[in-house]
Amino acid sequence: MKLASYHQSGGIRLGALCSDQQRVLDLAAASLALRDQIEPAFASMLALIEAGPAGLDRARAILEQAEDQNPGHCFQPLSGLRFAPPLLPPRMLCFSVYEGHMKQAFASVLEMKAGKGVAATVKALGLMKKMPKRFYQRPLYYKGNNLSVSAHEQDVIWPRWTKMLDYEMELGVVLGKRGKNISANDAMSYVFGYTCFNDFSARDKMMEEIPWGGVGPIKGKDFDTGNAMGPWLVTADEIPDPYDLKIQVRVNGELRGASSTSGMSHPISRMIEVASDEELVVPGEFFGTGAATNGCGIEFLRFLEPGDVVEVEIERIGVLRNRVVKPA
Amino acid sequence: MKLASYHQSGGIRLGALCSDQQRVLDLAAASLALRDQIEPAFASMLALIEAGPAGLDRARAILEQAEDQNPGHCFQPLSGLRFAPPLLPPRMLCFSVYEGHMKQAFASVLEMKAGKGVAATVKALGLMKKMPKRFYQRPLYYKGNNLSVSAHEQDVIWPRWTKMLDYEMELGVVLGKRGKNISANDAMSYVFGYTCFNDFSARDKMMEEIPWGGVGPIKGKDFDTGNAMGPWLVTADEIPDPYDLKIQVRVNGELRGASSTSGMSHPISRMIEVASDEELVVPGEFFGTGAATNGCGIEFLRFLEPGDVVEVEIERIGVLRNRVVKPA
Repeated sequence: MKLASYHQSGGIRLGALCSDQQRVLDLAAASLALRDQIEPAFASMLALIEAGPAGLDRARAILEQAEDQNPGHCFQPLSGLRFAPPLLPPRMLCFSVYEGHMKQAFASVLEMKAGKGVAATVKALGLMKKMPKRFYQRPLYYKGNNLSVSAHEQDVIWPRWTKMLDYEMELGVVLGKRGKNISANDAMSYVFGYTCFNDFSARDKMMEEIPWGGVGPIKGKDFDTGNAMGPWLVTADEIPDPYDLKIQVRVNGELRGASSTSGMSHPISRMIEVASDEELVVPGEFFGTGAATNGCGIEFLRFLEPGDVVEVEIERIGVLRNRVVKPA
Repeated sequence: MKLASYHQSGGIRLGALCSDQQRVLDLAAASLALRDQIEPAFASMLALIEAGPAGLDRARAILEQAEDQNPGHCFQPLSGLRFAPPLLPPRMLCFSVYEGHMKQAFASVLEMKAGKGVAATVKALGLMKKMPKRFYQRPLYYKGNNLSVSAHEQDVIWPRWTKMLDYEMELGVVLGKRGKNISANDAMSYVFGYTCFNDFSARDKMMEEIPWGGVGPIKGKDFDTGNAMGPWLVTADEIPDPYDLKIQVRVNGELRGASSTSGMSHPISRMIEVASDEELVVPGEFFGTGAATNGCGIEFLRFLEPGDVVEVEIERIGVLRNRVVKPA
């Protein structure tokens, strides 16, 4: 199933994409219309996730019934739908596991050479030598800003202090269950679904912050609306192999980078194992799996301009589209 | 007002400490009993915060009325109360602004000298030289794990991989309003209240992670239950000067460190200004203001043992007490 959150009448509704790919079914409205039931699991994406496999089964059943009986007022045409973020994640971990991306981004930073910030970043990351051993030992991550989420077709606000705004094309993963000390063998049962993720990044700010040592990315990643996700969540059953998905990024319609999720140096199961090591993970938690190879402007030293429209497309999931706008 | 969240009958109730300092009033129950009103603002701490000054006024009025009319079933004795965390914060920023703490902690790391991890940390933080200039230019912070919260008198779970578990005595700040690009001049109107905060830290893990550059503290800070807060929130009106509060930490009743919040190199207003720079801050968001001087074991190279009971006491707020336990 493809599950979307969307704005309607001042609230946010939970919808399922119909098999015609043209309409979204309002799950709560359909449950009321067809079964005279108020279904708490359809109140929001998080409620559905927390309802577990039984909730998903009920959603599938109501979608099937609605497509059969066709209660007109329960459907919304996809065109014109105002998307909300699929959910507001309780926490967001941002991994970096694509060797290809890292190598190209590091090479670009070395090429820039200019400015004190860049030199300090080069020093802090030891770029002169080679990829750090730790990159291959474990999936590295930082904590993202779970409050800076934006939706498909929502404008991303250009932070006033950056001159190097960039995109990152990523596969996003949403967890479905609460757990701690999860082994990689069990981990995939914790995945609820997948979405497209664009981790907009201010490269100049990042290079200022990396040499600070010990705080991680802050302003370079956390700015308002900078974590775009969508258009919807695709449930895990529709993605049997998350390591074989074509992924590409376009700017104003022009292809800027393409590769595949096969480039991950660590699988998602290992990310869940590492994240849950002596820590809780919870339903709705979001993992960015890291910029895929060729997935960032910095790899080619080509950054965004105000007004640019960025599209991240992932096979079997869809297209996430956002314009970057500079406030007046 | 002192506002507590506590467990009762499988749910979490919102209570206000009575003037006798012996009992807590169940605000929702009192509203129903005395005014026949279901008051949505009393459903949870976050609901009360979101209700703004009008919600707080209603809470004060109902507390006054209840102390006058004394509806017995609406009160709980403080002794035996099972505290919940005051709230589950939507996000947590952890600042570091005490020069005294930083200098002592850095000196300790230099003294340790042993091990590759320590040497790399020393190098990454440039400890050999002096306090970094950036420390005085802006309040530095990292993003904490908002899911790892524990309550007053809740056990803190010892992560299996640490041999250097430590405490950090801190003043905690909870925000009351949504905002972005807030100037330091306006910032204090965004403070809802204060609490005691103990940012439990695995120093060996931190020293492993600091040299990674660019990810920030992860396992060294994020482990389950490691962010203890409480016992309650004290509303901002009761703390006219947050920079003049005595703070101390005891382990098994023995005083281990004492100082004052006067040691902050940056005020809370500046933390809010920096945090909200091109980013949203939201009601219920939590700021740790950083370990106060003398507030950590690492400053004296003396760490915790399993079974230790740690108390953080702040003037005008109260005592936060947690035992650290090693799972069998």
